[in-house]
Amino acid sequence: MNFTFPIRVYWEDTDAGGIVFYANYLKFFERARTEWLRSLGLSQQTLREQTGGMFVVTDTSVRYLKPAVLDDLLDVSARVATAGRASLTITQEARCARQGHLLAAGSIRIGWVQTVSLSPARIPDHILRALQAPPS
Amino acid sequence: MNFTFPIRVYWEDTDAGGIVFYANYLKFFERARTEWLRSLGLSQQTLREQTGGMFVVTDTSVRYLKPAVLDDLLDVSARVATAGRASLTITQEARCARQGHLLAAGSIRIGWVQTVSLSPARIPDHILRALQAPPS
Amino acid sequence: MNFTFPIRVYWEDTDAGGIVFYANYLKFFERARTEWLRSLGLSQQTLREQTGGMFVVTDTSVRYLKPAVLDDLLDVSARVATAGRASLTITQEARCARQGHLLAAGSIRIGWVQTVSLSPARIPDHILRALQAPPS
Amino acid sequence: MNFTFPIRVYWEDTDAGGIVFYANYLKFFERARTEWLRSLGLSQQTLREQTGGMFVVTDTSVRYLKPAVLDDLLDVSARVATAGRASLTITQEARCARQGHLLAAGSIRIGWVQTVSLSPARIPDHILRALQAPPS
Repeated sequence: MNFTFPIRVYWEDTDAGGIVFYANYLKFFERARTEWLRSLGLSQQTLREQTGGMFVVTDTSVRYLKPAVLDDLLDVSARVATAGRASLTITQEARCARQGHLLAAGSIRIGWVQTVSLSPARIPDHILRALQAPPS
Repeated sequence: MNFTFPIRVYWEDTDAGGIVFYANYLKFFERARTEWLRSLGLSQQTLREQTGGMFVVTDTSVRYLKPAVLDDLLDVSARVATAGRASLTITQEARCARQGHLLAAGSIRIGWVQTVSLSPARIPDHILRALQAPPS
Repeated sequence: MNFTFPIRVYWEDTDAGGIVFYANYLKFFERARTEWLRSLGLSQQTLREQTGGMFVVTDTSVRYLKPAVLDDLLDVSARVATAGRASLTITQEARCARQGHLLAAGSIRIGWVQTVSLSPARIPDHILRALQAPPS
Repeated sequence: MNFTFPIRVYWEDTDAGGIVFYANYLKFFERARTEWLRSLGLSQQTLREQTGGMFVVTDTSVRYLKPAVLDDLLDVSARVATAGRASLTITQEARCARQGHLLAAGSIRIGWVQTVSLSPARIPDHILRALQAPPS
């Protein structure tokens, strides 16, 4: 099962083509990932304070399928595709909340790094366990 | 009474100072105004289709009082300060949801224009009535 | 005499109204202020390292007069309006480079703070002197 | 040979990690593609008016290799990787202008569509010819 987060399209998200500017789907995906981690008890600010580490985005791949327009409500999902010792690949989708069709589909790879040095590190065990638990 | 809308701070909203980038409060104010209009039955996309007109922002004035950081939850308010025949001035505030202190305070003037020509026009009566009705 | 910096309008700057999204003029003004300070030998990164302080924006006031569209080239100016011991007010304008008409006019107040504590402080003398020197 | 366009990092581009927010590389790549097309006589606004068509981004894939910080100057390149009848794949890189190391590398697929219907169409011949001419 996927985590899904609702996101409304505002003026700031659109461009002169009258549709959501494609680069903004990375922001929508980020918001959904953040809320998904928060729903698992993994607030990013708290993780930084408790572990001295944080996730950083290392690769993004997005296909843009259909346009969304002003005032549209999107459902943006996140789920773990693959989990390694130092990085995760997250599959994400943005769908039209009303009609259900797929607007954009992405694959986002995030790596765990030490906050100060930005050097890669092993993801703390309690994070991996939380990510692999069945959603409540 | 004010309309208030909750807004979460994500990575996209912050800058290298570690705080919310000041220009983004205009986006937060816009989101809250949009949801406030929607709560009054005044969806902007619908207004454009029904009336051939739309609101455009003509003046913004914002004071930045305290910084907000990643993961903060803000309460962003909107209320009519003055209503003319062709423009409105909206008073808006962003407050820390948890502690209540004021982060940013703004005054946003919006004018009604014909969508195609962008020339100023009188605000349709049903909009002015909706804005002046007591909040439900 | 004013400092002027050229800024091109890209897709990212526009909204579904087909014009530059008003909040983005604060970004354009920021870029011009930064290049103006750099032209006076006041690189912000260097200031932080050398003085332990930085400028933060405390008030912005902008009037939006005419729309700019995709591919437009803007000339964005910056000059000191008033200089106090702890803050400066900068007058800024964005004009159409080709036709010269005024698109947006702003007044931006910036205060000097200590980088770590964000508490207000006196602007270092060499900065005030650089700002008051006649432009070369 | 590549087209290369200089881009400066401003406050608006950074995030609370102290570095350029990864989603903004899509904006940097877009600016460089736009200037590259302009350098070939292919201004996007003019193309829309003359041909009734425009390029839209259909796929983006970006690897983030090293962080850039405030005040950094980047060199952002663009070159055609593959050219089909209805779409192009553009290879793009962002490098540190001073030290030359690679910050982000992307592959951006753009498709040609009719502006009003957004339906795919064949890229006009004069555009394909301009893209395949050796750079001057």
